[in-house]
Amino acid sequence: MNSDPIADMLTRIRNANQADKEVVNMPASNLKKGIAEILDEEGFVDDVKMIERHPQNDIRLYLKYGKNGEKVITGLKRISKPGLRVYVNKNEIPEVLGGLGIAVISTSQGVMSNKDARRQGIGGEVLCYVW
Amino acid sequence: MNSDPIADMLTRIRNANQADKEVVNMPASNLKKGIAEILDEEGFVDDVKMIERHPQNDIRLYLKYGKNGEKVITGLKRISKPGLRVYVNKNEIPEVLGGLGIAVISTSQGVMSNKDARRQGIGGEVLCYVW
Repeated sequence: MNSDPIADMLTRIRNANQADKEVVNMPASNLKKGIAEILDEEGFVDDVKMIERHPQNDIRLYLKYGKNGEKVITGLKRISKPGLRVYVNKNEIPEVLGGLGIAVISTSQGVMSNKDARRQGIGGEVLCYVW
Repeated sequence: MNSDPIADMLTRIRNANQADKEVVNMPASNLKKGIAEILDEEGFVDDVKMIERHPQNDIRLYLKYGKNGEKVITGLKRISKPGLRVYVNKNEIPEVLGGLGIAVISTSQGVMSNKDARRQGIGGEVLCYVW
């Protein structure tokens, strides 16, 4: 049993990225789908697809690399954890590496980047940083 | 003429690190020496030495790698810049990647890490992030 599916998602991406894989699959959930879509919107991955499977669908991420094979994702870090949830209000939305990275925030309006949360003036749970 | 010696220092480290070099030299200054010493204290480099040269001494950094050649420094980013200085007060000391990285702060008490600045309760100019 995996008690932190988001940490599992980040680990899968980290490992696949480290091994220069083109795709990485993981069991789907709404929260993970939200994170995957932000990675796509923010240009950290090439594409995201939902793969129908039983009993649980998969999310498939198409990892992105530069012309010379440079990794586009250089790091991922879980922030809020099951044992220590991290919430921020609209005035505390974190910046990541001076804008080089993003924070993924779970808000009442859905999962969004720190930039969108700041723009919309809403706080939430800081799921992870990606850079 | 190089109008931002700190940016030049970070670029030299970035390039040497990218090329898996063991050492990297740069023209010395007190500010750069301060940064180099923090990189050493924080375990980002193996050693720092001053090399006597004319008309200007060099700072030599001994870059650090893991057992399997993994880079210990994965990124460096200039924050305050000659055209846009970034100062923080003691309540605004930045955290870098949730503690995974450090910020180097130039304070009235000398150059120090964000952790030391927070401990001592002093703000200053945010020179760079290292992670």
